[in-house]
Amino acid sequence: MINNYEIASSNSVLFLTHTSPSMKKSFIVAFIMCSHLIGKAQTNEELALKDIYKSALTNAKCYPWLDHLSNKIGSRLSGSTGAEKAVLYTKLQLETLGLDKVYLQEVMVPKWVRGEKEIAYLLVGKQKITFPICALGGSVATPKKGVQGGIIEVQSLEELNNLGIDKVKGKIVFFNRPMNPEFVETFKAYGSCVDQRSSGAREAGKMGALGVIVRSMNLRLDDLPHTGATNYGDITSEQRIPAAAISTNGAELLSKMLKEKSNSSFFFKQSCETFDDVLSYNVIGEIKGSEHPERIMVVGGHLDSWDLGDGSHDDGAGCVQSMEVLNIFKSIGYKPKNTLRVVLFMNEENGVRGGKEYELQSSKNNENHIFALESDSGGFSPRGFSVEADEANFNRISSWATLFEPYLIHKFVKGHSGVDIGPLKSKHIVKVGLQPDSQRYFDYHHAANDTFDAVNKRELELGAAAMASLIYLVDQNGFVK
Amino acid sequence: MINNYEIASSNSVLFLTHTSPSMKKSFIVAFIMCSHLIGKAQTNEELALKDIYKSALTNAKCYPWLDHLSNKIGSRLSGSTGAEKAVLYTKLQLETLGLDKVYLQEVMVPKWVRGEKEIAYLLVGKQKITFPICALGGSVATPKKGVQGGIIEVQSLEELNNLGIDKVKGKIVFFNRPMNPEFVETFKAYGSCVDQRSSGAREAGKMGALGVIVRSMNLRLDDLPHTGATNYGDITSEQRIPAAAISTNGAELLSKMLKEKSNSSFFFKQSCETFDDVLSYNVIGEIKGSEHPERIMVVGGHLDSWDLGDGSHDDGAGCVQSMEVLNIFKSIGYKPKNTLRVVLFMNEENGVRGGKEYELQSSKNNENHIFALESDSGGFSPRGFSVEADEANFNRISSWATLFEPYLIHKFVKGHSGVDIGPLKSKHIVKVGLQPDSQRYFDYHHAANDTFDAVNKRELELGAAAMASLIYLVDQNGFVK
Repeated sequence: MINNYEIASSNSVLFLTHTSPSMKKSFIVAFIMCSHLIGKAQTNEELALKDIYKSALTNAKCYPWLDHLSNKIGSRLSGSTGAEKAVLYTKLQLETLGLDKVYLQEVMVPKWVRGEKEIAYLLVGKQKITFPICALGGSVATPKKGVQGGIIEVQSLEELNNLGIDKVKGKIVFFNRPMNPEFVETFKAYGSCVDQRSSGAREAGKMGALGVIVRSMNLRLDDLPHTGATNYGDITSEQRIPAAAISTNGAELLSKMLKEKSNSSFFFKQSCETFDDVLSYNVIGEIKGSEHPERIMVVGGHLDSWDLGDGSHDDGAGCVQSMEVLNIFKSIGYKPKNTLRVVLFMNEENGVRGGKEYELQSSKNNENHIFALESDSGGFSPRGFSVEADEANFNRISSWATLFEPYLIHKFVKGHSGVDIGPLKSKHIVKVGLQPDSQRYFDYHHAANDTFDAVNKRELELGAAAMASLIYLVDQNGFVK
Repeated sequence: MINNYEIASSNSVLFLTHTSPSMKKSFIVAFIMCSHLIGKAQTNEELALKDIYKSALTNAKCYPWLDHLSNKIGSRLSGSTGAEKAVLYTKLQLETLGLDKVYLQEVMVPKWVRGEKEIAYLLVGKQKITFPICALGGSVATPKKGVQGGIIEVQSLEELNNLGIDKVKGKIVFFNRPMNPEFVETFKAYGSCVDQRSSGAREAGKMGALGVIVRSMNLRLDDLPHTGATNYGDITSEQRIPAAAISTNGAELLSKMLKEKSNSSFFFKQSCETFDDVLSYNVIGEIKGSEHPERIMVVGGHLDSWDLGDGSHDDGAGCVQSMEVLNIFKSIGYKPKNTLRVVLFMNEENGVRGGKEYELQSSKNNENHIFALESDSGGFSPRGFSVEADEANFNRISSWATLFEPYLIHKFVKGHSGVDIGPLKSKHIVKVGLQPDSQRYFDYHHAANDTFDAVNKRELELGAAAMASLIYLVDQNGFVK
């Protein structure tokens, strides 16, 4: 669609006319623009949101910022050169916005390096069938010559434990439970599946396995392995076995071959390494509150990313959207009553050190955070907000739903807000996570295709506008104590 | 995001545990699955929607169907070989579903052929600066040697008319009003802009212009020209001047150069041609109603596409989603009370002949259509429905909103339904258009990049599920007369 439309504007009412010349009757549909505004004066809040959205859709910097972050800097794993460059670049950009304060907050972060490209194959007789894998973040390396052994497929940690040590010892364990496509919200499918990646190596290591291969957390069938953190917990260094992700197509093929060929063995090789912690930074910018400078509203995302793509969705998008919130307020001349602080957290992916350090310093300084908003679910069309608050304040936020309706923000739910703002524990803090459309998120998550071209400019800008609107409403209305 | 989550299932309540090992406190968020279902029995309607969504997300055929339509057949402009093949292919696929009836409905359609690749450049002294253009659908060709002349830029039909014949005669007219990014819904931006494409050539032709170049209907800056119908109306053949679209980057550059270089002339050449009408078909499949076989519910999209891409979003998606509705009902064993008919309309893009023929035959046969649903806004995440109905029936449909909430369908608005179902005029018919997220639609619309890879499998399936759910509810509840 659409064949032919002509539109004639008459004040704020537009008439949309179907004008296909060969249609006998053209029909006129009265197209009420901003129908909520007809017949009543616009409130200040309605006008403010209108300004915010206009600024975001016509005058935003978030897309070019993301372009630079993704295409000029690239991946930003904690402790990498990319992460260092991103700290300097975003600080410099915040300094151009005319904020009251821009500064770096020191934080020691883990440094894990992938090393050489990983190799994996199944040996069936003399035949080698290769598979696309990548080391999981935090994994140990294989021995230099790689690791080889029989491979057993399981669908869960429970199934592994039920097998017992005798069947697992000396084997490579292949976790192959797919993300469940029945969940409409893909984060729920992720949540029900990711234990294989985060705990698989620890549990198999305790049972004397040689290594672990995990099906990528991806709802799509493709050839890209998706990395992400694996955690050994407190097991001994002898029990720490190498762990890698395999692409979903690879997992399907491997599973099929294992059913067909019982006399096979699996080989993989990776040279990843954990170094000593290094100094890095949270990047912070601030507009001082005009009435309550001691009350702090935080907006943020995480500046670090995994190393395979350039982290455009995870979480370059959240960083530039958070920066954009302050840019929008400056552009429309809105001076917040409470202090508004953007924080670009370092090290969400493999340690949450930035989030924890920020809370530590905040506690030391007796800071009073009234609100925190994180964007870390991709730069897709915003759908709503996930709120951590008591009933009264959840209801307060939900009561703003009608203001958001013209902007297609409909979802106000209780739930997880964000990993980086998780540690914040001011007494009356309300925390919120932006919830974009989640359907495509795991197509890119932690994989080599999480790149700038996968982000749509308008979707990114609409997310920033939704965030700025929520912060504006919090700033104007405050919370119930 | 997300660092690490583990999930433990306990009946229908899941506990989502943050288990980053280095965080002092892990926190538990009770994750209520399908929270609307806790504490009360599920109604039949809730259960039916659950079945429909499960079927769509785990067992659908729409994505492989679209793969074939897009990658094996390709573009399907009315009268083309692609359109013929698509008729045969979709008929064959419908025949595999065990419907009560599958048939073709004859319809004569226009046949317009693009011909050789178009050429355009600006001549500044001896320098030629080339631009990416494409002939608008229905345009006449230029003379074989092309057309060359001074070029004047205007922003609207009004500005053209204000210039007067003296300034327009013998010139090429360049319509360059961009889509307005301030509209949150991109179809509104399209509606406010497309008169340049549909009527520009007619109006400039009346004033004796040599040709028309129109900025592509695209909110993004890129190098792809977007075609679409232009209508000469009833002007004489002498007044019919060639019309082409220019890419948005091209339009920006051309405008800039025209401001800088006054002594320039523009050249373009295209060899498109309109042939005699040819025979084509609407493809129709039917499940007979178990209680009211005489009451008909139609679901459809249009099988034709423009010729530049493969028409995956416009409207391959709508066709396969409509076919999927019947496949879902067959899969879950739901027998509709009213007759359910899928119609894949031919020739939406340049004539709406399929829609008109369908209505003509329906009138002849005294058919009683109670409902029509069209999907022709792309295969993106579904957001809601646009309803053409009286107040009582709009309220009835809106009252189902809570049933759709768990599936993230929130938008129930009055407005345009679909071009192909537009001609239907049964007395009590209610018409609805599926409204997917619109942000990316005009990145692809009528351009060479409207291809299969731009469609996400889950987004497509969720659209089909939303359509099947609405039809199920209409079938169960009927409408107010």
